[in-house]
Amino acid sequence: MENQESLPTFLSSSWYNYNITIFYIPFYQLILHCLYHSLSFINLSISQYLEDKYPHHYPLLPQDIHKRAINYQPANIVSSSIQPLQKIATLKCIEEKISSDPDVKLAWAQHYIKKGFVALERLLKDYAGRIATGDEVYLADLFLAPQIHAAIKRFNVDVTRFPLLSKLNEAYNEIPAFQDAMLEKQPDTTLASAS
Amino acid sequence: MENQESLPTFLSSSWYNYNITIFYIPFYQLILHCLYHSLSFINLSISQYLEDKYPHHYPLLPQDIHKRAINYQPANIVSSSIQPLQKIATLKCIEEKISSDPDVKLAWAQHYIKKGFVALERLLKDYAGRIATGDEVYLADLFLAPQIHAAIKRFNVDVTRFPLLSKLNEAYNEIPAFQDAMLEKQPDTTLASAS
Repeated sequence: MENQESLPTFLSSSWYNYNITIFYIPFYQLILHCLYHSLSFINLSISQYLEDKYPHHYPLLPQDIHKRAINYQPANIVSSSIQPLQKIATLKCIEEKISSDPDVKLAWAQHYIKKGFVALERLLKDYAGRIATGDEVYLADLFLAPQIHAAIKRFNVDVTRFPLLSKLNEAYNEIPAFQDAMLEKQPDTTLASAS
Repeated sequence: MENQESLPTFLSSSWYNYNITIFYIPFYQLILHCLYHSLSFINLSISQYLEDKYPHHYPLLPQDIHKRAINYQPANIVSSSIQPLQKIATLKCIEEKISSDPDVKLAWAQHYIKKGFVALERLLKDYAGRIATGDEVYLADLFLAPQIHAAIKRFNVDVTRFPLLSKLNEAYNEIPAFQDAMLEKQPDTTLASAS
């Protein structure tokens, strides 16, 4: 198949319980697809690798060093400070080891999502355009869109408390590549299988 | 002061409850220092920014794309799949919201450290030299050394179960820059203040 390529195996290890062996261009659509399905399916390692290998393809990062950093930060806040604490594997661990009360799990997830959203709202207020860091899709958007979507759909977070993130969410919902990547568009995937 | 520079403010936001305003070269010593003090003090955003801004300084990443990816992956496993789940803020949250039993917190932290170490041991076995990805210090080492150190000193994890990580730990302990960065060398910092 054209546009098919294997990732290095160590980027698709069983750590993620998935086996990513092929991807399609444009890469950002693949990454979005994976992120909407499960925020732990793909991580910054893969987006960094793609950016290194195909710097002149559709870039995941802008050229300007300052703007690159503005993209790193939201991607890292989502992938290090929100997602690990609200992913299904973590909530299962709470259920099995600590408390079987579903309200405990939900409150835990909401706590970390809101804490992260406060930081993201503050961080992006000086840089956002139509989307996170201007008017073009970059790395920050790939991590933000699925996280905001998950907050609303899976964790019943009132995102209207975060006006900028709400505005970004509306913009993402109007971009065809983002619409196509959403979990709800994938008939073979259930919310319960996402982690 | 020579070699003093401000980071962009959004990289040193109150999200981290710290105010990183200056750093010293060699950068990797600063990053190590921060990581040993508190794994959430600094994150991949800052190391990525430094690498973008000073690519010809002491590089945090090798030139080879495959070797770069071998460095991304351990850094991401530590910063996204271990550290967020064992940092003091998370353990405090367990204590306040779920269980005040100290054994619950310890077992929780140990679970995520060991799960991550299994993945790291498997990942690095084909690439390690004297240290994580060969014989030179790169990004992976900066994230691995403090995490292994914390596992032993703070969480009483039996690292001998992970022969490669044990070997790396011995190597790190012999590198002066790593020795100097360790928490124990800093008279003004207590373990309780690390997060």
